[in-house]
Amino acid sequence: MLPFSRVSIIGLGLIGSSLARAIRAEMPTVRVTGHDASPDVREIARRIDLADDITDTAGAAVTDADLVVLCVPPGAMGAVAADIAADLPAEAILSEVASCQASVIAAIRAILPNATLVPAHPVAGTENSGPEAGFASLFKGRWCILTPPEGTDATAIARVEELWRRLGADVEIMDPVHHDLVLAVTSHLPHLIAYTIVGTANDLEGVTQSEVIKYSAGGFRDFTRIAASDPTMWRDVFLANKDAVLEMLQRFSEDLSHLQRAIRWGDGDTLFDLFTRTRAVRRSIIEQGQDDAAPDFGRAHS
Amino acid sequence: MLPFSRVSIIGLGLIGSSLARAIRAEMPTVRVTGHDASPDVREIARRIDLADDITDTAGAAVTDADLVVLCVPPGAMGAVAADIAADLPAEAILSEVASCQASVIAAIRAILPNATLVPAHPVAGTENSGPEAGFASLFKGRWCILTPPEGTDATAIARVEELWRRLGADVEIMDPVHHDLVLAVTSHLPHLIAYTIVGTANDLEGVTQSEVIKYSAGGFRDFTRIAASDPTMWRDVFLANKDAVLEMLQRFSEDLSHLQRAIRWGDGDTLFDLFTRTRAVRRSIIEQGQDDAAPDFGRAHS
Repeated sequence: MLPFSRVSIIGLGLIGSSLARAIRAEMPTVRVTGHDASPDVREIARRIDLADDITDTAGAAVTDADLVVLCVPPGAMGAVAADIAADLPAEAILSEVASCQASVIAAIRAILPNATLVPAHPVAGTENSGPEAGFASLFKGRWCILTPPEGTDATAIARVEELWRRLGADVEIMDPVHHDLVLAVTSHLPHLIAYTIVGTANDLEGVTQSEVIKYSAGGFRDFTRIAASDPTMWRDVFLANKDAVLEMLQRFSEDLSHLQRAIRWGDGDTLFDLFTRTRAVRRSIIEQGQDDAAPDFGRAHS
Repeated sequence: MLPFSRVSIIGLGLIGSSLARAIRAEMPTVRVTGHDASPDVREIARRIDLADDITDTAGAAVTDADLVVLCVPPGAMGAVAADIAADLPAEAILSEVASCQASVIAAIRAILPNATLVPAHPVAGTENSGPEAGFASLFKGRWCILTPPEGTDATAIARVEELWRRLGADVEIMDPVHHDLVLAVTSHLPHLIAYTIVGTANDLEGVTQSEVIKYSAGGFRDFTRIAASDPTMWRDVFLANKDAVLEMLQRFSEDLSHLQRAIRWGDGDTLFDLFTRTRAVRRSIIEQGQDDAAPDFGRAHS
């Protein structure tokens, strides 16, 4: 028994287009309807046959859906909820994939207070954007975090969970506020730091931009990958998850000052102790299959 | 004509063992002699047949060499120079691969003022350490920066350059102080930031360590890779390149405060403008072949 038979995806970027591809790959009998606010994206989506139907309005995409998944940047979620309000079937389950949940849930519920809302955030992605950047296996072996508001129907939660399991994800259920704190440290802070350091390197006078790029294999290039992520999405994430991001940033800055002081005073033991401890974290991530142990992600061997 | 016929490598970690493998792969007639201060490492090096001869002392490794390359952490360079001082042939060229050059050159020259010193820093590496982590292709398509002190014999520089070109590297010659500034931004600061953020995540109370690891695919895991680099080497680099690292750190902290303020005050334009600019840097790095454009380094497709 498939959990859904008519899925509507609003927003056909990296996540939305990957979701469409994954559903068609794993559950070919499910009817997938898609919509994107951009006419260019809709045209590409039709050309690459991303869904059974690509509609010109968000409302038309949801009229007969039993699951609607909003895959737009956090700041656009409220507006899209308003766009579909008149056409969303009462019995449909509404979901969204935002990287920050508390504020997005509030924005959606302000417009659709009676919708059955089961947010599902797949912790997966690449630095590429747009309908052509997606691929069907993006969610395999990754975690998908469901953050249903209190009182959400258990059957609805179970159906969304079943969908993501069929796409290859492991599913966890979490309180939205705790989700936002976890993501602030595992995703939002790393992105903010990466954006910052690439900007800092871009603004130097003593070192040319060409030198920064030429010698990026010393570590810098890994940051540029993250700092190439979608600007709109990330602007929205930082603004929408402000409190948790600022809290993590404060801790990070304190820790950085501590290391800065150790360098200034030649305190090698403090540096060595931390660098030994961080190595163990890496080992755990590889043991748990969330990254590849190949040196340099295998790039160096190519 | 080969640039050297008897190469001695002191220190058989990631770089030293890769250099041994690369020379044997590209110039099989060159005699390679190796030494490492650790008896365990020497035993492994003998077992995996890393060199034609593995000697028990540094002095014995250099007696008939025409090139000696020191591949030990920056803080150990002076001591190793002292170890080989009595045995280094007068006509041999001395080289080293440190990631910070000005202080390392000073430490070596204090002990060997008359040696022909041609430092050569290959901007390449992985997060793995030790004699078994090396591989012959590590330097292919990467830059190797030569930082010969003023007045160094031009023929000696040309021979070292030729060696690295034969190993597949592109070679650049740079003033040691400028080298240290360039590496501070492209390598040292990224490592320091990565170590810090992994430490910060490790110390949280509200989020468990297991959650940090589970959801690391959201960006955090890329930092843990860099933060798994050799603790001794990196402690030495930060202490030896203190001034340049502190200068870069100061700029980074200012830029981070600027973004922090933008988040606190909801200034989305400042965030969006930076995130758009950083994307362009990424594009240049891929165009210049210093990284792979495959999303997620191809991991996501596996």
